[in-house]
Amino acid sequence: MKAAVLHAAGDLRIEDRAAPVAGPREVLVEVALVGVCGSDVHYYEHGRVGTRVVRVPHVLGHEASGRVVALGEGATTHAVGDRVALEPGVPCGRCRECRTGRYNLCRDVAFLGAPPTDGAFTRFVAIHEDFAFALPAGVSDAAGALIEPLAVGVWACRRAAVTAGDRVLVTGGGPIGLLAAQVARASGATEIIVTDVNERRLELALRVGATRAVRAGSPLPEVDALLECSGHPDALAAGLGALRPDGRAVVVGMGYGDETTVPIALLQGRELWLTGTFRYANAYPAAIALAASGRVDPEAIVTRRFALEEAEAALRAGREDPASVKVLLAPQS
Amino acid sequence: MKAAVLHAAGDLRIEDRAAPVAGPREVLVEVALVGVCGSDVHYYEHGRVGTRVVRVPHVLGHEASGRVVALGEGATTHAVGDRVALEPGVPCGRCRECRTGRYNLCRDVAFLGAPPTDGAFTRFVAIHEDFAFALPAGVSDAAGALIEPLAVGVWACRRAAVTAGDRVLVTGGGPIGLLAAQVARASGATEIIVTDVNERRLELALRVGATRAVRAGSPLPEVDALLECSGHPDALAAGLGALRPDGRAVVVGMGYGDETTVPIALLQGRELWLTGTFRYANAYPAAIALAASGRVDPEAIVTRRFALEEAEAALRAGREDPASVKVLLAPQS
Amino acid sequence: MKAAVLHAAGDLRIEDRAAPVAGPREVLVEVALVGVCGSDVHYYEHGRVGTRVVRVPHVLGHEASGRVVALGEGATTHAVGDRVALEPGVPCGRCRECRTGRYNLCRDVAFLGAPPTDGAFTRFVAIHEDFAFALPAGVSDAAGALIEPLAVGVWACRRAAVTAGDRVLVTGGGPIGLLAAQVARASGATEIIVTDVNERRLELALRVGATRAVRAGSPLPEVDALLECSGHPDALAAGLGALRPDGRAVVVGMGYGDETTVPIALLQGRELWLTGTFRYANAYPAAIALAASGRVDPEAIVTRRFALEEAEAALRAGREDPASVKVLLAPQS
Amino acid sequence: MKAAVLHAAGDLRIEDRAAPVAGPREVLVEVALVGVCGSDVHYYEHGRVGTRVVRVPHVLGHEASGRVVALGEGATTHAVGDRVALEPGVPCGRCRECRTGRYNLCRDVAFLGAPPTDGAFTRFVAIHEDFAFALPAGVSDAAGALIEPLAVGVWACRRAAVTAGDRVLVTGGGPIGLLAAQVARASGATEIIVTDVNERRLELALRVGATRAVRAGSPLPEVDALLECSGHPDALAAGLGALRPDGRAVVVGMGYGDETTVPIALLQGRELWLTGTFRYANAYPAAIALAASGRVDPEAIVTRRFALEEAEAALRAGREDPASVKVLLAPQS
Repeated sequence: MKAAVLHAAGDLRIEDRAAPVAGPREVLVEVALVGVCGSDVHYYEHGRVGTRVVRVPHVLGHEASGRVVALGEGATTHAVGDRVALEPGVPCGRCRECRTGRYNLCRDVAFLGAPPTDGAFTRFVAIHEDFAFALPAGVSDAAGALIEPLAVGVWACRRAAVTAGDRVLVTGGGPIGLLAAQVARASGATEIIVTDVNERRLELALRVGATRAVRAGSPLPEVDALLECSGHPDALAAGLGALRPDGRAVVVGMGYGDETTVPIALLQGRELWLTGTFRYANAYPAAIALAASGRVDPEAIVTRRFALEEAEAALRAGREDPASVKVLLAPQS
Repeated sequence: MKAAVLHAAGDLRIEDRAAPVAGPREVLVEVALVGVCGSDVHYYEHGRVGTRVVRVPHVLGHEASGRVVALGEGATTHAVGDRVALEPGVPCGRCRECRTGRYNLCRDVAFLGAPPTDGAFTRFVAIHEDFAFALPAGVSDAAGALIEPLAVGVWACRRAAVTAGDRVLVTGGGPIGLLAAQVARASGATEIIVTDVNERRLELALRVGATRAVRAGSPLPEVDALLECSGHPDALAAGLGALRPDGRAVVVGMGYGDETTVPIALLQGRELWLTGTFRYANAYPAAIALAASGRVDPEAIVTRRFALEEAEAALRAGREDPASVKVLLAPQS
Repeated sequence: MKAAVLHAAGDLRIEDRAAPVAGPREVLVEVALVGVCGSDVHYYEHGRVGTRVVRVPHVLGHEASGRVVALGEGATTHAVGDRVALEPGVPCGRCRECRTGRYNLCRDVAFLGAPPTDGAFTRFVAIHEDFAFALPAGVSDAAGALIEPLAVGVWACRRAAVTAGDRVLVTGGGPIGLLAAQVARASGATEIIVTDVNERRLELALRVGATRAVRAGSPLPEVDALLECSGHPDALAAGLGALRPDGRAVVVGMGYGDETTVPIALLQGRELWLTGTFRYANAYPAAIALAASGRVDPEAIVTRRFALEEAEAALRAGREDPASVKVLLAPQS
Repeated sequence: MKAAVLHAAGDLRIEDRAAPVAGPREVLVEVALVGVCGSDVHYYEHGRVGTRVVRVPHVLGHEASGRVVALGEGATTHAVGDRVALEPGVPCGRCRECRTGRYNLCRDVAFLGAPPTDGAFTRFVAIHEDFAFALPAGVSDAAGALIEPLAVGVWACRRAAVTAGDRVLVTGGGPIGLLAAQVARASGATEIIVTDVNERRLELALRVGATRAVRAGSPLPEVDALLECSGHPDALAAGLGALRPDGRAVVVGMGYGDETTVPIALLQGRELWLTGTFRYANAYPAAIALAASGRVDPEAIVTRRFALEEAEAALRAGREDPASVKVLLAPQS
């Protein structure tokens, strides 16, 4: 099968590889569409994300939808032909984190596209049947591929405890911010304020459900929750400054480096909560239900599709096209 | 001023009374509309609700919207002319329940229309300024009057911890059930199943956002939360049977009497949670925000308005008209 | 190896059986001591517990401590010779309940001694290495065997959210009630009231940390949490009546049958929470830490030890000796 | 009455003042003992704490126990002669923070000793009856005075969700750290690790219940919760580094200035929670119950008592005596 294989930072090649085989309780999935995530771009550009270094050759990609084409031994959850979205991280199921329901923090997770596990920028992937989720008829392949970043938004809103009537500030109108804003709205937030420096993203934010979209740095009203999706310390500081007493700030965006500065006197004086997200746990069913019910529209953020052969262009789209928000790869085309 | 005064069970008279005066930090409110609640009907029919006996003469009514017409000493929150919804229960603010944020359970609450406090089936009421909530322009007087039962729905969803992607069962499609279903949907529930024995209410449930409306007694799918709004033990038993492990059941409906039977082996075996609601706390801001943002439409359940002189007909509407769901009194007409 | 094998209700035989072999990631454990639980007694007397029917021949026993004597393939957590307490329920690790941290509600759990899985009334058992927990030097084999019922107490206190300064009512001073009372105390409860009809148990309750021990039916002060460990509807009703507003009742005791009566008006008017426990999840580390630190003393409730050959006498001790509280079997003796 | 009055930074004078009179629902309390808090010292040394500037003349002191000597109009909670501990912050009871149970964040709080409200370094203070808490016979005046900092520890443990079997790290072995460590232990923590740079405080930590006391900078084991009581950024960083995934860090210590640096990549990668405390809410009943039951021993940290005339020496004790931990003033002596 064809795969987009990373050989070094900036060196991506389309190659032929042996297709995987479904192991015990696994399903083999023909990838329909796979989203390009900021972390894919970062691996492509730098060969690493933080301390996680690519061991080449490596296949990126973890936001995938597809169709079940074969069942491994003992796999009974799906039938051949089922359309599915893939939850890319398969945890050990036994460690303390797994047992307490925070399996996203399992140290023995195998995560599609995160070294050393190959990902979905290819035609077929095999995955444990319980991490393939059936897609209802009304959820397109594109929406199915975006269940993964949508799950990030679901998880962020859960950790922020967003609930009916809340005022939610989303700093950063990239793919994650726009999906998180949609989930916040679907979770009952009645004010959803998105900040960014990119006017197009602010416009898009309003189209997908933000009640207000303003340039980063603008004065902010008091909010109940902050979803920091920009990776900028200034956004975090501004967002913390806008939180009501006992409010929650959830840092979703990457790019801070190891450390950042926080207004600790404010955090103490208002008893704010600050936390971050690392992937998500138990969020796929909700993400799929939100997409299937029309409460969120993940496809609204897709700006372009690429064939597998164009994988490199897809990885560069974000840098080269200021209008680009989210791009998808179609491995079968 | 004119008031509808209860003199005995079944004996309601329109009388002239002296208008109240706004005390310290109170506002005087000209009542625009006031909803008729099942508890008003129960007081009218039986002269009591449970152990709470009316001391006649008494004025009923606690679901009120209106306009501020005078300010008591030290009242600064509102201006004369402001449109407001009234939170009818003014707690002591000092006891353990008040200090811990569950002021709805304060024993020293004064609650409009609940003996011995006179209510809003009249032209003017005085209330502490902090329990009058400004209504945005987009919230009508009718919606404003229904903020009270809407707050019951908000509170029920909060105790049930309804969140994005949940499947919620609402047993009982009366005013409270229909509003609770709307709040559940606004809170992110993607399946909202309403059960009732009244076909018209099932139709209305679908119009206001239920994804499924079925006759009580029908088979039920697994759900994450139960909002029991019917007051029927059978509905409670059926709803508990539908709950997923660790799911929450919240009993909102009245009418059980002192005791009821619960499937305790099921509750233990699935570790279900069962609780009830008594009014609400801190729910008005969310209820108003939901109405203002269009996420819920409280007016959709209003079936008729009555003048103050027709108060008795309003109290009988539920019994005499099977199509009646929610009626409002207009004290100024 | 010798085992106490149930052939029918009331028909328990000491037989020779082939010792189990440690499978992949399993450890083989030589059982040091195993507690006799009320459910063991119930299986022995009735051949079933609720809808769960023994398929004979069957080995009972799930409260076990022991020593690792062999390692299965890939087992690395323990060394041969390690002293361990066994968490008897090994869940699937993949289903929704497992993934959300409530693995005690997994439908595919294999639970030592619960049909069809054979238990620990025998000399050797094999179990997944992650469900054998190392015992610190200060925790005796007897305490190790009682980690299981202690975990029930930990779980009950967690669901009841017992915290520092709480007043906790424990209805029922049997083994579970006495251990739950100890955990409540260790969790910071400053009033721990135990009720029972058995004077010896009330005395024992005071010795293990209750601040008050009174006959069931006595007047009760207001409490923050109820741990119902008796299985008696009257105790549940009395306990609910003693709860403060928004207080929590956790039903731990078995024996209600399918249904029971609850004071629903009270539950609504005070917004009480009622739930139950089914085994426990993630409670072994805390239970062991509490025993190791001396905060609880599980051995204090042990009234007698029996050799394996005396298994039948052990199962009858509760009925035949009114002073019996908790008995242990010593399979190696 | 005599009072220790601050006239400028470093200028404290013993003066005669008119005793206060108990207003409506207030009690007049003869102060038995009053603790000297770090914030008192800071006001004395700098004339301000952060943005809060003393308006002189001002009376410091907010950790007080005493005896009710007169009742204001309508005060019925206490009798003359009752021994009480004073909760120094009396909130408005009506604002959003008060209504939601976080009254410590009320903007209209009047707080004894915090400008512009005079404090308890004097013979008599008047306070709302609901903020005087009866002291059981077993709680000494000294323990009563220390209920205030003990409540800080209760609140910190609550926000950190310390529960049975937890491993808790307390960075900073000053009065607050030592009391927080005691509360953590009383809340069921089985490992309580205290760090400090002062050997005497480490010794004291072990005497009051820490299971380990080590020099700041030493390697740390994994912990479930961090109570940062030192005010040092290094301690915060080290503590965050020791937290288990999803663990909670609560910053109690003052002295950071407006901003500090946090290891944001760690916070995200392990999904840690970071928050702070500002005073406490609803913590006095638990603090008193813990002291009364002997679970904590607040007096163990008292190193010296001073007469009111020695107030200046008391405020200097912390600087001048390295063995000083907590000092008390006795205004009646």
